[in-house]
Amino acid sequence: MEKKGILIVISGFAGAGKGTVVNRLREKYEGYALSISMTSRNPRPGDVEGKNYFFVTREKFEKTIAENGLLEYAEYCGNYYGTPKAYVEEQLEKGNNVILEIEIQGATNIKKAFPESLLIFITPPSAAELEKRLRGRGTETEEQIGKRLGRAAEESAGMDTYDYIVVNDEVEKCVDEIHSIIDIAHREPVRMKTFISELQDQLKVYK
Amino acid sequence: MEKKGILIVISGFAGAGKGTVVNRLREKYEGYALSISMTSRNPRPGDVEGKNYFFVTREKFEKTIAENGLLEYAEYCGNYYGTPKAYVEEQLEKGNNVILEIEIQGATNIKKAFPESLLIFITPPSAAELEKRLRGRGTETEEQIGKRLGRAAEESAGMDTYDYIVVNDEVEKCVDEIHSIIDIAHREPVRMKTFISELQDQLKVYK
Repeated sequence: MEKKGILIVISGFAGAGKGTVVNRLREKYEGYALSISMTSRNPRPGDVEGKNYFFVTREKFEKTIAENGLLEYAEYCGNYYGTPKAYVEEQLEKGNNVILEIEIQGATNIKKAFPESLLIFITPPSAAELEKRLRGRGTETEEQIGKRLGRAAEESAGMDTYDYIVVNDEVEKCVDEIHSIIDIAHREPVRMKTFISELQDQLKVYK
Repeated sequence: MEKKGILIVISGFAGAGKGTVVNRLREKYEGYALSISMTSRNPRPGDVEGKNYFFVTREKFEKTIAENGLLEYAEYCGNYYGTPKAYVEEQLEKGNNVILEIEIQGATNIKKAFPESLLIFITPPSAAELEKRLRGRGTETEEQIGKRLGRAAEESAGMDTYDYIVVNDEVEKCVDEIHSIIDIAHREPVRMKTFISELQDQLKVYK
């Protein structure tokens, strides 16, 4: 079987539990690398440089765009977010699956540039549950929560552009489903090219 | 979640072990119904009417085509093979997954008529293994084995038109992989339409 890793895009409403799911996935299963985004937004309390994001100035971000050093980038709420290219390509070649946790706008750009990437949308089971989780985080003002819910309403229009929708009801179940999706993706013909062409070669003698 | 079953097409070279895999899948997991094909070929030793096939005359087959009673049909080695429509639709509505074990020509026709169907190609790990299994069946002459291998060489050109390629090396592993493929297919947006539109409705109040 081919050894190349799969580029996985994980999106979901703020409050869907993406961070928890991705951390648990990497803890439970081997072969996942996390791509770290670059952003021009200011660090929030608890943000760690080089772990949550690479925090840079708008000027440095725009220089990286100009140098073609990003897989994709998008502007969201007045700040740039993007994916540095070199690290992703290196991990895929090594056979690791690379997870990008990005917004829907960035996800669409990744799919255009890499049709073989896998787009997964994580959602809570209902809008009521989403609101409950957002309040439960306790990190945002009422106004910010309202904005995030409004944003979720907009984002929900794009859910069907994803390859898979995974409901995050129980974290373990959600993590196992995502792992299965990625495992099974290795059985798509586009990822079995070497196997198929070897078999076709072996069968030629019978023609 | 939606309850509708998935139409699954299973193809593979003669000798790939399709029959064994499909039987074991139905034994091990619930919710699978097997579609029984109609054919104008003569029964072979061991063939059971209404189990392996519905055996009919060419005239009866052509009448069924004319009455639009088949999901798809194809002519292969001088005989008609087709899928009676009514039973398949009834099972899908009930929430059962329906398995069609058909040739590549029929598979392509099914995918055109039902883009949501899932096409799975079962293959042995190598051409040498395929030849070994065909001889091991002991049901065919050398000439017939030669014909089947020649046919496999031709069919291998169409492997990449399938949604998934599953290597039948160990039956249990192959069966579990097929079951995972079908399970995971329920997470594709096309099969989560009700969930998505309900969530979109719930989120509208936040816009």
